[in-house]
Amino acid sequence: MSKENKQVLLSRQPEGQPKASDFEISEQEIPSPRQGEFLVKNIYLSLDPYMRGAIAGRHMGHSRLNQVDLIRGRCVGKVIKSKNSEFNEGDFLVIESGWQEYALASGVESEEIRKLNIENGPLSASLGILGMPGLTAWAGVEQLAKPNLGSTFVVTAAAGPVGGTAGQLAKVKGCRVVGVAGTDEKCSIVVDKYGFDDCINYNNKDWLDRLSKACPDGIDVYFDNVGGEVLDQITDGLNLYGKIIMCGLVSQYNIDAKSEGGWKGHNLGRFVGKRASLLGLVVYDYYEQINDFLKVAVPLLKSGKLSYHEDVVDGIEQAPEHFSKLMAGNNVGKAVVSVSSEK
Amino acid sequence: MSKENKQVLLSRQPEGQPKASDFEISEQEIPSPRQGEFLVKNIYLSLDPYMRGAIAGRHMGHSRLNQVDLIRGRCVGKVIKSKNSEFNEGDFLVIESGWQEYALASGVESEEIRKLNIENGPLSASLGILGMPGLTAWAGVEQLAKPNLGSTFVVTAAAGPVGGTAGQLAKVKGCRVVGVAGTDEKCSIVVDKYGFDDCINYNNKDWLDRLSKACPDGIDVYFDNVGGEVLDQITDGLNLYGKIIMCGLVSQYNIDAKSEGGWKGHNLGRFVGKRASLLGLVVYDYYEQINDFLKVAVPLLKSGKLSYHEDVVDGIEQAPEHFSKLMAGNNVGKAVVSVSSEK
Repeated sequence: MSKENKQVLLSRQPEGQPKASDFEISEQEIPSPRQGEFLVKNIYLSLDPYMRGAIAGRHMGHSRLNQVDLIRGRCVGKVIKSKNSEFNEGDFLVIESGWQEYALASGVESEEIRKLNIENGPLSASLGILGMPGLTAWAGVEQLAKPNLGSTFVVTAAAGPVGGTAGQLAKVKGCRVVGVAGTDEKCSIVVDKYGFDDCINYNNKDWLDRLSKACPDGIDVYFDNVGGEVLDQITDGLNLYGKIIMCGLVSQYNIDAKSEGGWKGHNLGRFVGKRASLLGLVVYDYYEQINDFLKVAVPLLKSGKLSYHEDVVDGIEQAPEHFSKLMAGNNVGKAVVSVSSEK
Repeated sequence: MSKENKQVLLSRQPEGQPKASDFEISEQEIPSPRQGEFLVKNIYLSLDPYMRGAIAGRHMGHSRLNQVDLIRGRCVGKVIKSKNSEFNEGDFLVIESGWQEYALASGVESEEIRKLNIENGPLSASLGILGMPGLTAWAGVEQLAKPNLGSTFVVTAAAGPVGGTAGQLAKVKGCRVVGVAGTDEKCSIVVDKYGFDDCINYNNKDWLDRLSKACPDGIDVYFDNVGGEVLDQITDGLNLYGKIIMCGLVSQYNIDAKSEGGWKGHNLGRFVGKRASLLGLVVYDYYEQINDFLKVAVPLLKSGKLSYHEDVVDGIEQAPEHFSKLMAGNNVGKAVVSVSSEK
């Protein structure tokens, strides 16, 4: 074959915020499947905050990447050649095939390779609202928070795919839902597109007052995607016996880096005073329930009760810059790379 | 009346560990009840760790004490004169009557005054295993932890009335129960008297290894009476989806005082990794369920399935020294002052 497979490799371990220059683009011949293998043409690549820790070896199940290692990542792709009886040409998959245009794979359906029902919705949705971020939101709302009718549900990173979906699911369950996000643009999407009752921009100095006013009956559930001092601040508005879903970036901020004069870690007395339940959420635990989740989410998406917002760039070579933007909080909605037009 | 009422007053706000010299003894004439009032002769005074924060105004519902204020505290007492139709001479009460020999009271049964059924057990037990500490233990085990048969249940301050009762209740519920305490003497009581499966002295350097060996199937429930770094250390041995009952001294340790080079506060990533549930326990929430608790605890005590250990001194003037010993962790079992022999 003469056609090339464009890949994104690690150029050096990022320090702090990743930069596009921490990555490099490489081209390789497109491989041919041997017996038992199949070739996937990637269509969409998902960019997610957990990847920052995965590259550094801080994310569960991911070893630290070395220079010129392929960056791992989840894609929607299409089988274009197959010598594997489980997967046929034309099958659409969600697959851990990395930051590249083509990937060889083998094996059977697993957590890493899942066949996609293209009737469920747009292909890219399977990386966001119908994918791991949606499953995370569903697990937090349905399996852990279990909010009552009329509960007040607050979620941070509300414009993102986890926060946005969590809030919309809580809304469907009859909660008052208030988001917290970092820009007025994000807040507009959260309210106008996702249908939250309100959204507070935490870059306003008086955001906690605004949050308090937006939650006149206090907060019953806080779905935490940011951790740290914001968690403490929002907990001050939690009702007695409230629930806190510990999700998201908790494992990623660095207490040590902030210890000089800044926030030092949580004093649990704050949570005891609230008689709070703090519940740790790791989405991988719920992977086997993905079909239970889709049974709920697909009809809600089709009927317009769930909406999503994507931040898409074209071409695998744009992935480093787009990832850098995501990790700086400058993206809006689900970060996706459109890798090819094979749809 | 010529007889005197000995009282313990605050001499000055303790700094750090309270000392006997932070208190002073005073004598006043024994008061006579006016219409609606009744006079209680105190028999036993309970000394509890929460009092340290209460004196300083850091405990919920307690305002900071000033010099020569009477120290507040819970007693078992007997009504010896009454001009109140609700309480008759000869009634035994658990009552917030303070560090003194006699107390005037008024009103009706409430959280502060409860009539005592002397058939339940020894009078002093109503300050410990049948009192607020026992209720705390029951709430943590029955209402929050709800351990399964065969679960491994670990509790700190295991020789104390909360920890000791919690472990024994978990044992009755079919758990493997391992205590953590600060001396070999305490550990002996925990194993030999309370019947725990094991008890680890945390003053042994290798106590975490010993704890790990004592919990070969990991820890399913950790009933936390100490907070801080020990909570983090024990959490490392928690099984996935384990529960942590946040009780005890969490609100009393001072993060700021330890921030220089020491432990700085909790990183919740540790708990997320364990998918832990952290549940805040405040005993006052369960006060109305005290009869549900007694219905369980009294027969267990009578049948010998619950045991307790007391550290008793004679005379209200011994209360400051005994409290100082309690707050230094040098007492063993429930700290009680025998105020009078009126039984």
